[in-house]
Amino acid sequence: MEKELVFGHQSPDTDAIGTAIAFSYLQNKLGYNTEPVALAKPNDETAYALKKFGFKAPRVIKTASNEVNAVMLVDHNEPQQSVSDIDKVKVTHVVDHHRIMNFNTADPIYYRAEPMGCTSTIVWKMYHENGIEIPQNIAGIMLSAIISDTLLLKSPTTTDYDHKAVKSLAKIAGVDYEDYGLKELKAGTNIDNKTEDQLISGDAKSFKLSGNQVRVAQVNVVDLPDAMKRKDAFLKAMDKSAKENNYDLFMLLITNILDSDSDALVVGSDSAKAAFEKAFGKKLDNSEIKLPGVVSRKKQVVPPLTEAFK
Amino acid sequence: MEKELVFGHQSPDTDAIGTAIAFSYLQNKLGYNTEPVALAKPNDETAYALKKFGFKAPRVIKTASNEVNAVMLVDHNEPQQSVSDIDKVKVTHVVDHHRIMNFNTADPIYYRAEPMGCTSTIVWKMYHENGIEIPQNIAGIMLSAIISDTLLLKSPTTTDYDHKAVKSLAKIAGVDYEDYGLKELKAGTNIDNKTEDQLISGDAKSFKLSGNQVRVAQVNVVDLPDAMKRKDAFLKAMDKSAKENNYDLFMLLITNILDSDSDALVVGSDSAKAAFEKAFGKKLDNSEIKLPGVVSRKKQVVPPLTEAFK
Repeated sequence: MEKELVFGHQSPDTDAIGTAIAFSYLQNKLGYNTEPVALAKPNDETAYALKKFGFKAPRVIKTASNEVNAVMLVDHNEPQQSVSDIDKVKVTHVVDHHRIMNFNTADPIYYRAEPMGCTSTIVWKMYHENGIEIPQNIAGIMLSAIISDTLLLKSPTTTDYDHKAVKSLAKIAGVDYEDYGLKELKAGTNIDNKTEDQLISGDAKSFKLSGNQVRVAQVNVVDLPDAMKRKDAFLKAMDKSAKENNYDLFMLLITNILDSDSDALVVGSDSAKAAFEKAFGKKLDNSEIKLPGVVSRKKQVVPPLTEAFK
Repeated sequence: MEKELVFGHQSPDTDAIGTAIAFSYLQNKLGYNTEPVALAKPNDETAYALKKFGFKAPRVIKTASNEVNAVMLVDHNEPQQSVSDIDKVKVTHVVDHHRIMNFNTADPIYYRAEPMGCTSTIVWKMYHENGIEIPQNIAGIMLSAIISDTLLLKSPTTTDYDHKAVKSLAKIAGVDYEDYGLKELKAGTNIDNKTEDQLISGDAKSFKLSGNQVRVAQVNVVDLPDAMKRKDAFLKAMDKSAKENNYDLFMLLITNILDSDSDALVVGSDSAKAAFEKAFGKKLDNSEIKLPGVVSRKKQVVPPLTEAFK
């Protein structure tokens, strides 16, 4: 069988990399010939999870058509989040938990999307549906992906299936998921060795809301006051990025993974900032706003912003 | 739970109507509140299958937003094949076996596509995955859908899963699938009581191929020479439709379901007809061409036409 590559989105997180590994293993068991790859090096959290379960970081690619004719996508479908030459290869499979946008095919394909907290939860279901046993290390990396995407099952995106998958996978992987999960998340919170430019671009997504270019970046920490010591430097880097990329609004969500509270920093035009204040029903105080209980960009930030910009 | 409507594409066939019934039943078992409906009355073949298994024809709707906020689509995803106000309702589920085109969502949804011969084959898998028992009448209507879409497992779109589903569903439905299948297909081949206009529009799809508007209609019969007695009237109706709708090419595939051979009638511009001849490596003889073994528009007609028009 002709080889296919399996990969997640740009700026990969533990779901993008871990689920690519787990889905590739499943597809190979089902008779395909696949290799999991990544669109960039793993972040600190993902590197911790890969090491814990004995995986090397997947090979990094920027384009696919130079080595294969067909690919499988996990954790994304929008072309601009994929390899730069996605239009030059055939997509045969997609497994994802995001909205579907600008994804078109010439032929019928396998497409599996469910509104779960993590793509690995869907892949976990697929292992069961196909009667394929999950090896210990694959269980470990899928568990890590779900812990990452759901912030240890605390994010409002979390479903009953995410809970079930975490319990089942932790058993196979042989770890206490609460103990391991906290260690995994903490491994991704060391911001001391990163510049502000790196931090505001590491986990950042762009959205077009009623004609406004809105950028929402997120950084996980365990000590919010400590992170806020760098507030002025963050604002300066955000201001520069907003000007260079014509963002009407740039929001940085700094989330304390221990108590699920966030502080947000915001730069942008006066009208965009007014929309932001409307979205959350609070006034910005010196470019800053407290958002207790807000941890999910997808569920708690983008929907109210979308409404407010209408 | 808020009510949702479940429906297949415009000009519904047995897959569109039968799978809507079967998927609605499954989703209700899973806790949703749905009603299967159709975008038009059933054709003769579908009416035969519905009657055989004790179903009434589903209620016909043209729009959905006047009665519900959310819908589930089966056997299609392209907006122009759906209700006219598809942009005014939320699509929460899709089950389909076609290419994905111009289908965009604001939020994550359930989307299940597989390149199987029939949507009911995918829904059959979903019953098993969810541990839901298939009642006799639901098995019968799903069986009818697969027989219809695969021309009794003879179409090249047929997969191993379609074979397995047909055998399993026939057992539950309590019918000999070869005997019943032939009766079902024959029920759809009575063209005597239909006008040429009705026949060329009953099962017709439009494709844009390298800027050319191409229309491909299909009619199933059991006696090709008998159907070809109406050749001149077919050509006249096709010519009129092509002029009114600016089709560069209009092809009518008349398929003998007993031996899986087809005759094609073709009208259109000289350059489009030249592309048609290139696609099939044969010359048109008085607007007619013999296509032995060709039964699938999706697999055997559209791909060579797409190539030839490039």
